[in-house]
Amino acid sequence: MTTAHHAPGEARPGGRTARTRQAVLTAVFEELGDGGFAGLTMEKVAQRSGIHVATLYRRWRCTEGLVCDLLTYLSSDVPLPDSGTLPGDLRELARSIAAFYGEARRRLLIEAVVSAAARDPQAAGVLRSFFDERLALAGRMVQRAVERGELPADTDPEKVMAALGAPFYYRILIARRPVDQDLAASAATAVWAAARAGAYGRAADGPANGASPGG
Amino acid sequence: MTTAHHAPGEARPGGRTARTRQAVLTAVFEELGDGGFAGLTMEKVAQRSGIHVATLYRRWRCTEGLVCDLLTYLSSDVPLPDSGTLPGDLRELARSIAAFYGEARRRLLIEAVVSAAARDPQAAGVLRSFFDERLALAGRMVQRAVERGELPADTDPEKVMAALGAPFYYRILIARRPVDQDLAASAATAVWAAARAGAYGRAADGPANGASPGG
Repeated sequence: MTTAHHAPGEARPGGRTARTRQAVLTAVFEELGDGGFAGLTMEKVAQRSGIHVATLYRRWRCTEGLVCDLLTYLSSDVPLPDSGTLPGDLRELARSIAAFYGEARRRLLIEAVVSAAARDPQAAGVLRSFFDERLALAGRMVQRAVERGELPADTDPEKVMAALGAPFYYRILIARRPVDQDLAASAATAVWAAARAGAYGRAADGPANGASPGG
Repeated sequence: MTTAHHAPGEARPGGRTARTRQAVLTAVFEELGDGGFAGLTMEKVAQRSGIHVATLYRRWRCTEGLVCDLLTYLSSDVPLPDSGTLPGDLRELARSIAAFYGEARRRLLIEAVVSAAARDPQAAGVLRSFFDERLALAGRMVQRAVERGELPADTDPEKVMAALGAPFYYRILIARRPVDQDLAASAATAVWAAARAGAYGRAADGPANGASPGG
């Protein structure tokens, strides 16, 4: 995802700000690995990163702010594929998600972010916007597939992408087990079959007052 | 789900224990509605329920224990259908899940439970066992479908049921929006199509060292 994140050490105006961010987020990631979200404090992050705690409070406000920013930062590493076919794109993206969450610290991170959202409305807003933005970007994959005639014209791209992500978050947050490439293969196969079967049509997303006869 | 939960006020040995549990869990549910998990304390629950706080600590240990028990208690209200066909069963169960989480307090509850699990290994264990048990029970629906010849013989019932639940938890915890009957219809249609397409085969769940070529 090519957004406004900058590579560490990049020579550009704001490079110092970027370096501070990298130092802080690296420290947050390490702290999460050591003690999970329960053990995370602004003071520990300041100590580990060498950045003054006042800077942390000013820029990130609280540990909830830190974990949300870390999620945004790390997710820029998950590329959106363009292989030429939707099944290929789905498989590739699912593999990338599985690889991303293959690391235990990243599972702790998403757990921390969801946990932060439960306690802090501002973190909840960050989480919602973050995934909205990701879904909109990833939705382009599906739009291309519709244009190629691979899927019904009324397919809702964001529903398809939400369906691809859902099994990973279920596995991590609810089943509480590691993700693996088998889950990725299953998710990609499932979403492709379901999308072809019309499970993600826009029509079903119409006015909430519409009854849905026959389910 | 017919487990060991007893109806409130039931005349049986242990009836007082059951009444205490009901009073306490009702109070927890109301507190969640008022202030979310962030505002939940043992003292507030004691005050609202009229049960001594020492009893709460002895029996539930901490607020994490309370929300996990509440989830178990409430979920006994979600029946497992047996309509005669798997698409029918999937639609019915998905509707029940959507109705269950249609109430905001129940979304707050699952959020609280996941949040509790992030902070407390014992809560994490309760959450995992709870969903394991639910999946195993619900898996019978899928086993019947395999016996009826509706699905490939190597279908993994628990994978199918996890896939049915996943979109709801994604919607609540990640997308952070209400669930509705459209989501239920989409989930049921998707899982049926995906299961028929072989997305939930047992084979893919083999030894983790097996590469998944093309998958």
